[in-house]
Amino acid sequence: MTTRTIILNGGSSSGKSGIARCLQAVLPDPWLAFGIDDLIRAMPASMRTSDAGIEFAPDGGVLVGPEFRALEAAWVEGVAATARAGARVVVDEVFLGGAASQQRWRKALDGLPVLWVGVRCDGAVAAGRELARGDRVTGMAVSQADIVHEGVFYDLEVDTTRAEAMECARTIAARLG
Amino acid sequence: MTTRTIILNGGSSSGKSGIARCLQAVLPDPWLAFGIDDLIRAMPASMRTSDAGIEFAPDGGVLVGPEFRALEAAWVEGVAATARAGARVVVDEVFLGGAASQQRWRKALDGLPVLWVGVRCDGAVAAGRELARGDRVTGMAVSQADIVHEGVFYDLEVDTTRAEAMECARTIAARLG
Amino acid sequence: MTTRTIILNGGSSSGKSGIARCLQAVLPDPWLAFGIDDLIRAMPASMRTSDAGIEFAPDGGVLVGPEFRALEAAWVEGVAATARAGARVVVDEVFLGGAASQQRWRKALDGLPVLWVGVRCDGAVAAGRELARGDRVTGMAVSQADIVHEGVFYDLEVDTTRAEAMECARTIAARLG
Amino acid sequence: MTTRTIILNGGSSSGKSGIARCLQAVLPDPWLAFGIDDLIRAMPASMRTSDAGIEFAPDGGVLVGPEFRALEAAWVEGVAATARAGARVVVDEVFLGGAASQQRWRKALDGLPVLWVGVRCDGAVAAGRELARGDRVTGMAVSQADIVHEGVFYDLEVDTTRAEAMECARTIAARLG
Repeated sequence: MTTRTIILNGGSSSGKSGIARCLQAVLPDPWLAFGIDDLIRAMPASMRTSDAGIEFAPDGGVLVGPEFRALEAAWVEGVAATARAGARVVVDEVFLGGAASQQRWRKALDGLPVLWVGVRCDGAVAAGRELARGDRVTGMAVSQADIVHEGVFYDLEVDTTRAEAMECARTIAARLG
Repeated sequence: MTTRTIILNGGSSSGKSGIARCLQAVLPDPWLAFGIDDLIRAMPASMRTSDAGIEFAPDGGVLVGPEFRALEAAWVEGVAATARAGARVVVDEVFLGGAASQQRWRKALDGLPVLWVGVRCDGAVAAGRELARGDRVTGMAVSQADIVHEGVFYDLEVDTTRAEAMECARTIAARLG
Repeated sequence: MTTRTIILNGGSSSGKSGIARCLQAVLPDPWLAFGIDDLIRAMPASMRTSDAGIEFAPDGGVLVGPEFRALEAAWVEGVAATARAGARVVVDEVFLGGAASQQRWRKALDGLPVLWVGVRCDGAVAAGRELARGDRVTGMAVSQADIVHEGVFYDLEVDTTRAEAMECARTIAARLG
Repeated sequence: MTTRTIILNGGSSSGKSGIARCLQAVLPDPWLAFGIDDLIRAMPASMRTSDAGIEFAPDGGVLVGPEFRALEAAWVEGVAATARAGARVVVDEVFLGGAASQQRWRKALDGLPVLWVGVRCDGAVAAGRELARGDRVTGMAVSQADIVHEGVFYDLEVDTTRAEAMECARTIAARLG
């Protein structure tokens, strides 16, 4: 059974969504790219600043509440169902809960072959890119750089500290076979 | 069983996503808002201009190919699964295929109570708003204003020609009970 | 001497930039559209949350500091110079300082014929549109609806409470002659 | 007299605007960042696809017509006036006309000390970043990588092929003194 699901996990500004777009360009079949940012955009505006929802602290910390978790769980089921229905899907994720976050995806994707990819980036470099982007709360890149990988299992890891998004995409595509 | 799925169908620039955001603001529980624009954004860039994907003609016509249809079907399954997993979901859709488009959603949402809402807007008025937005191909509003409603069944219709998005949202929320 | 500068003044979410884009579409010559949002985007990210810069309070209040004022004054000179160099220019402004804000523009545009347009919108209606847009701090629309017009002189006023952006644009274009 | 104007020139996706944002973050005083993309956004939508305006060919070529040139000239005067009025200004430009483009800026900025910075990036690398961004016509990066530098004089050159935007910004800031 061919792998039709790729999960990219990495901290903010590590370059995940750029890799996802490059994958869409280099892979011969059409792939859908979803990401945690899509979920946040789909939520009520009020949840983006509430204790029960998601809060972006001025120092870059991200706090997630129970209502966020509930909607997130349903969204994960939806992405899994899209994959089960036959679409090729690449997901751009931030495992704030490390191994526990991965476990949620494993359960939802049970039975489907998945390529788990760690997207590493040196925290200081990611922090510079965060400033260069200009659309993120400063501090997220550094605070997430390491914790999102804690206890997570990968089939493959790429590091954008020195490698371009396109190189990483080619490495991933080669592994996909 | 409480209705936790709302499908808003209307032509481009009829005001669907504004109504969805107002619904998120006025409804007491958190709702996720998804839309056909999210699907298009999730697709490979190359599919946005290919015969097999989706093509936005200079006159505002939208042509949809077989690969688009396949990914769309899988996305519809995903949205339905998100609803089945317990999330409240409002979808902002453009039924280019009229009744056939609705049939696809009915099948995917089978067994779930759904509120079907038609979002009408006079074509000339929608065309003016399309220009005012400045981010859409000119002509889509007029060409879609009527055809997306052909043969479609609704529980409720709203008309943004004169009513504000917030008024429409309150009407829909009242119907939801 | 033909009027080649239009200043649109109104509160947040009153529909100014939509009118500006419609003006660009209906006027026979090419017009450049600039707005206060362009200035804010041009500023350092750090100034968007500092006492010396501009601060968007959670209740929709906007506080402007001395560094913001200094950069704003230079930007106004720049827009005026663009007009003096021969370009047709429509500006989308929020006169937080009422008459004093207008005075700054009058001074910079001295000698150039200007069409001053007030863009009114009922505060409650603008508040609904603010929610429908989903990209603004809630409360700005209501808090700015009236104060931006205090003591300001207009050649023409339009009201988007019931009129479409395109109708307002046609009214303004007709007045331009 | 202190240098308060920086012109960054480089091809599409060479990383100019990222450098501009990093400069705003590392320089002690507030700087305004303007760019050619702001001018294009200020133009009527119709000019973005007309012979007289600016045309983005499917192969990444950019054709510029007489009306574009006229509005551009007026915009350059405006940016220069903003600098003359005392604001610190960093401009992110694409000298499609090479030396002739620079000559237009030199004339407008006459008498002001300017730091001219060339932003180089290997064409193939820039092309990969163009795909990773996902919001540009494919081909612009390659087609502009070299021609924008032809005959242009610089005080300083940076190369983003291997250096991060933040490193480039620090190099430029150091030169500024």
